[in-house]
Amino acid sequence: MKKVILAPDSFKGTLSAMQICSIMQEEIRSIYPKCRILSIPVADGGEGTVDSFLQAVKGEKIPLRVKGPYFDEIDSFYGLIDGGRTAVIEMAAAAGLPLAKARKDPSVTTTYGVGQLMRHALSKGARNIVIGMGGSCTNDGGSGMAAAMGVEFSNSHGDPFIPVGGTLHKIAKIECARAAQLLQGVKVRAMCDVDNPLHGENGAAFVFAPQKGADMEMVRLLDDNLRFYERSLQRWTGKKDAGALPGSGAAGGLGAGAYALFNAQLAPGIDLVLETVKFDDLLSGCDIVFTGEGRLDGQSLRGKAVTGIARKAKTKKVPVCAVVGDVLDDGVLPVYEAGVSAIFSTNRLAVPFSEAKTLAAQNLKFTMKNILALMKAVDGLQTSI
Amino acid sequence: MKKVILAPDSFKGTLSAMQICSIMQEEIRSIYPKCRILSIPVADGGEGTVDSFLQAVKGEKIPLRVKGPYFDEIDSFYGLIDGGRTAVIEMAAAAGLPLAKARKDPSVTTTYGVGQLMRHALSKGARNIVIGMGGSCTNDGGSGMAAAMGVEFSNSHGDPFIPVGGTLHKIAKIECARAAQLLQGVKVRAMCDVDNPLHGENGAAFVFAPQKGADMEMVRLLDDNLRFYERSLQRWTGKKDAGALPGSGAAGGLGAGAYALFNAQLAPGIDLVLETVKFDDLLSGCDIVFTGEGRLDGQSLRGKAVTGIARKAKTKKVPVCAVVGDVLDDGVLPVYEAGVSAIFSTNRLAVPFSEAKTLAAQNLKFTMKNILALMKAVDGLQTSI
Repeated sequence: MKKVILAPDSFKGTLSAMQICSIMQEEIRSIYPKCRILSIPVADGGEGTVDSFLQAVKGEKIPLRVKGPYFDEIDSFYGLIDGGRTAVIEMAAAAGLPLAKARKDPSVTTTYGVGQLMRHALSKGARNIVIGMGGSCTNDGGSGMAAAMGVEFSNSHGDPFIPVGGTLHKIAKIECARAAQLLQGVKVRAMCDVDNPLHGENGAAFVFAPQKGADMEMVRLLDDNLRFYERSLQRWTGKKDAGALPGSGAAGGLGAGAYALFNAQLAPGIDLVLETVKFDDLLSGCDIVFTGEGRLDGQSLRGKAVTGIARKAKTKKVPVCAVVGDVLDDGVLPVYEAGVSAIFSTNRLAVPFSEAKTLAAQNLKFTMKNILALMKAVDGLQTSI
Repeated sequence: MKKVILAPDSFKGTLSAMQICSIMQEEIRSIYPKCRILSIPVADGGEGTVDSFLQAVKGEKIPLRVKGPYFDEIDSFYGLIDGGRTAVIEMAAAAGLPLAKARKDPSVTTTYGVGQLMRHALSKGARNIVIGMGGSCTNDGGSGMAAAMGVEFSNSHGDPFIPVGGTLHKIAKIECARAAQLLQGVKVRAMCDVDNPLHGENGAAFVFAPQKGADMEMVRLLDDNLRFYERSLQRWTGKKDAGALPGSGAAGGLGAGAYALFNAQLAPGIDLVLETVKFDDLLSGCDIVFTGEGRLDGQSLRGKAVTGIARKAKTKKVPVCAVVGDVLDDGVLPVYEAGVSAIFSTNRLAVPFSEAKTLAAQNLKFTMKNILALMKAVDGLQTSI
């Protein structure tokens, strides 16, 4: 075995994609010490997204002081890859829930810093922007980000302001000209693994604001404001589907803002990862791809990581082995059809998840060890026939 | 892949070794249609032992009317293999718990029919007798079996009788001459996967009699009688360890009787299976062995099946893949050391055993399918390099 690609999704609730790569790599090293191993931990858009990309391809982590969720100055960063042409920005690095610390309040937090990261990347020459949406503490519809990128919001008195979740209803006018100029010839894409609309019972406020610190009263206020925000976006950008587009409710409505104000494309994270790291090229000369995720079922959007990877590998005739936590029957067929050769569950005891999750790392290690040992044993077999 | 051996133990409580062979075979057929498949379901000495041997090697199932556990006439059978030189007798076929039906009472049941099966086999020319001990409804110390083979038990009045669990204490004399003559040049071995002594708290009565229908009062009586029986065996056969030998308490004490009265060897079932089917010879030209058991841990005697198989395969450099239910850490190292290349658990959901056991067949099927698919994928890989 000369070249292996590791492209696992995270095992949600137990292991990050980076941890999985690291365990897989260690096991491969011990059985195939000379094998070239490429790690592409599949970023989910949340915390760790930039590191995941930088793990997969050459690039630079650019540190930057920007405004944090409470308009305070914080140390943030983004990634520059592809020779500086592509910037990877995780919104969690400037508006992430951990940055809110004990003061969680999605009615006053901003994504302004996210826009600052974008603006800095553009000034460095980036012409592709990939925004990881996930883990936000905000509900500002991405208006803060847009403001930092030159979009002007003003109230009914004509006074400019930077809206937050609690003040979106004060927007009387949106002026995009400066931002449009900055973004000329620039492609903005946002990693989006949820299909929530901007408002309503499945919207950003009702589904995600409670975990950001909102009580029911605040949720209703935020939802009303997002509804108002939708109309503002429709009016001033002409994007009629700004609030209905699947994923517009991602990251406190940042999906809607990025789409309407930056003309951003919302795409499944896996598509952006595979395209950005030029997965097709990496497959050349690859003997096998190991992928995986926490739960293989027929429902999850996240399951698209495994099938997305398999589909690409299939066209290059590279075998794919999926190592996953739980395997449900309805998840199996589409995965085989996409091109996965074999699926192995890391479960090795009949115990409930509460117990199994404490064994996640050692179970993954065990499963990888045995898959590789079988491959090695069969290798020997072949050469001896 | 040209030749595969399937040698699984049963998954206790879920799948028999025969069922496992059948599932494994089906999956191999679908991926390697031309592969030669040898099935050696590892018999556990209990019900199905004869069929297991006959599945593994050519032979004949001999039907015979013998006495059942209540001295009634029943239809029984044994197996003749190895060109008629070896007889395989499962005691459950003449003294099994299902034969007791609703009348379970280990103080009155007999193993007489087991001796009749032996005697018939000897008359047909068998010179090796393998007795599967397991699933008995008796507690007669094998005295019924011995009586059918010509051993004479008499009471203090000099009257001959056939002892049962409740009357072992009436033995005043044991005369083995006729049986010894019948067994001249004959090797008797009993499959023994428990190490219980004849009596005491770990003995046949205390450990096994309750499931055969004994209440505590009867258990104490049976245990006293086995204690008396031990002294009788010691006195009349000179076998001082008749009651202390590990396994002498197997099958209602049949282990002790076979050992003391027939000079039988008590051996782990797997050893007798591998020797009887000439496993070493079968390994020739074999590409891979699939074995497995319900639970791989450091404790179980049964685990010896997997290690026993692996040790033999290792000397012939044949890879071994173990497919098991639960895998415990302490069970893993000895199994690798014995020569197992890779271990896969059939668990694929983090659910408790009560739920997992209902999925045993489909989980085994799934696991085999994916192991074979991986092997196939890696096959292709090799030929393309």
